[in-house]
Amino acid sequence: MSLITLTTDFGTGSPYAAAMKGVILSINPAATLVDITHAVRPQDIHHGALVLEDVAERFPPETIHVAVVDPDVGTDRAIVWARIGQQQYLAPDNGLLSRLARRTPASKIIRLENKEYWLRPVSATFHGRDIMAPVAARLSLGLEPEKLGPLQKRLVDLTWPEVRIAPDKIEGNVLLVDSFGNLITDITAKMLSGRATDSHVHLACSGRETWGIHRTYADVPAGNFVALIGSSGRLELALVGGSAAARFNIKAGAPVVVTWE
Amino acid sequence: MSLITLTTDFGTGSPYAAAMKGVILSINPAATLVDITHAVRPQDIHHGALVLEDVAERFPPETIHVAVVDPDVGTDRAIVWARIGQQQYLAPDNGLLSRLARRTPASKIIRLENKEYWLRPVSATFHGRDIMAPVAARLSLGLEPEKLGPLQKRLVDLTWPEVRIAPDKIEGNVLLVDSFGNLITDITAKMLSGRATDSHVHLACSGRETWGIHRTYADVPAGNFVALIGSSGRLELALVGGSAAARFNIKAGAPVVVTWE
Amino acid sequence: MSLITLTTDFGTGSPYAAAMKGVILSINPAATLVDITHAVRPQDIHHGALVLEDVAERFPPETIHVAVVDPDVGTDRAIVWARIGQQQYLAPDNGLLSRLARRTPASKIIRLENKEYWLRPVSATFHGRDIMAPVAARLSLGLEPEKLGPLQKRLVDLTWPEVRIAPDKIEGNVLLVDSFGNLITDITAKMLSGRATDSHVHLACSGRETWGIHRTYADVPAGNFVALIGSSGRLELALVGGSAAARFNIKAGAPVVVTWE
Repeated sequence: MSLITLTTDFGTGSPYAAAMKGVILSINPAATLVDITHAVRPQDIHHGALVLEDVAERFPPETIHVAVVDPDVGTDRAIVWARIGQQQYLAPDNGLLSRLARRTPASKIIRLENKEYWLRPVSATFHGRDIMAPVAARLSLGLEPEKLGPLQKRLVDLTWPEVRIAPDKIEGNVLLVDSFGNLITDITAKMLSGRATDSHVHLACSGRETWGIHRTYADVPAGNFVALIGSSGRLELALVGGSAAARFNIKAGAPVVVTWE
Repeated sequence: MSLITLTTDFGTGSPYAAAMKGVILSINPAATLVDITHAVRPQDIHHGALVLEDVAERFPPETIHVAVVDPDVGTDRAIVWARIGQQQYLAPDNGLLSRLARRTPASKIIRLENKEYWLRPVSATFHGRDIMAPVAARLSLGLEPEKLGPLQKRLVDLTWPEVRIAPDKIEGNVLLVDSFGNLITDITAKMLSGRATDSHVHLACSGRETWGIHRTYADVPAGNFVALIGSSGRLELALVGGSAAARFNIKAGAPVVVTWE
Repeated sequence: MSLITLTTDFGTGSPYAAAMKGVILSINPAATLVDITHAVRPQDIHHGALVLEDVAERFPPETIHVAVVDPDVGTDRAIVWARIGQQQYLAPDNGLLSRLARRTPASKIIRLENKEYWLRPVSATFHGRDIMAPVAARLSLGLEPEKLGPLQKRLVDLTWPEVRIAPDKIEGNVLLVDSFGNLITDITAKMLSGRATDSHVHLACSGRETWGIHRTYADVPAGNFVALIGSSGRLELALVGGSAAARFNIKAGAPVVVTWE
């Protein structure tokens, strides 16, 4: 498989991603490159971990996902190759893969130590270009991951706010705000299954409230604050025809409370 | 032809487009993917229709253009495949293809109903990923469009502000603002042909005015408000070396009046 | 080599780049297209020249780099093909290639005059689409550059602020601000080699100061203003964990003074 994706916090207009692509194509001109996003919030590992969790498994088996959100670049933090499910990942071992690994534990983790496959010299501040890009290109040409370095047992984990589940109440949080200003929460369809979704359920976030969990945005008129299960299986709060985040000034981290009468 | 383009309102940094690409490449790993833009204004079908009109026909014959500006996702609005000229389109039938179809009527329209070619389950809020992406991938592998569902006679149309043409006056509107802040109007080169373009023509928009229609920006010094025929054959108003939209606070929809002495 | 890159000031969400891609793929459907960036500041040739200098040579030999920052489009400014090092470039001859050419003089320059390889008609305002895109596509199919027009001896140069180097002082400038808000200067690792990089070196920019040149961002705690050698070999000033440009309101062009005790 010569498919390589990139997920970074470089900024959407940044030429840094192109530097990585140039390195990859210099080693494997037949590689297919896909940007997942370069708009992870700068140095926000939690955000990057969520994006990977949502999107990476949509790609064909054996895709090589390169993720660079790396505030500790140049220190002794490891860079790892990991197999999680049917996908391959290259990332700093700082928690970026932790949401994926919570759902499906990594079946193999290798710590990148063999400098033979890196660019020379390696800069202290851009390991995406100097280490991850050339390693991804070589993997796409068939290099055995075992040649990259020693096995490692675990990936670094991250702390996340908890979801509290009671018989008549679920307390969760806004995980992220999408580009429409919809509020994506850490409350899943699974947590809600078997409970009423009609007007007997009440949802509140930052002083805003709504009743009922709808099927899609257009089920209620424009201007309404609506709850629904989003396309990634998470409870989502949205302003129909507008941006809930902008209008109500709600950010990732805001608490969300769901109660039943 | 395995060329597929994407035009959406997901936002340029959004990973939603990558989810669609993952689905497409999982079905046809040899597909070539090109982003037309993901910066259509959120839920602005008119804006999406203009972008498609300007760009789609630049692509090779048989290109499959997937367009997702879909405020009514999950309702009973149709999703259609259409052949317009030599190109193929997949889009919600909400007017997104209507500017293309006004110039060249669709020669065949098929309403997507055959769920055999969709992902399972289909979410209620992301038909771009769950219906349009897998269908585009299968079309790129040679699937007959007729297998997607029944024929449909017409595409949904949109209402647009009118251009009024008189012997000594043309009244039109700003259709869109490009990334340079240039004001692209619905007055075409064709409407202007045979009329004076020298200093006898007067152009006004939101209290700003200029005389003469120039060939290119650099024909007048920086800082001047200038009229010219843009690269898509439309009358365009621009601030040389700056952004007319930002400086004069002019938005899409503003009236434009052209008069001759 | 059928690899073509695009570097423009069209704006990241603009569909203009897609129009160029459509033209290229219509002529060579097998071309591989990579965006370097479309976020060059509008009409800022200096910015475009810096981006090309940083990134272009990361690509495989014979890559065709198309660069469009073209405020004088439609005037008699030339469009050129140039070979610089092992790469090929197509750009308006307005200085866009001048930083690359200062490091490695162009070994061949050809002025595009042969309209046989252009689109017809050629618009007055979008030569990227109508001249550079079709010419790039034909070069990628093996067209001899000599067929494009006559040889030209020199490329247009640009003026840059100077770096003044004294035994105990170097005075330079912020060249550009990257997407993290890091300040990239025109002072290179080479200029600093052999000099102290410990706390005996003092760096100042727009009233902000720091001591010592560090190896990487994480060498000092978050919130500190830090100096280091960036991944392109230039002295860089950064706010650890934040944006130096935003916090201190520093822009490209700001003077940077390095002194030794």
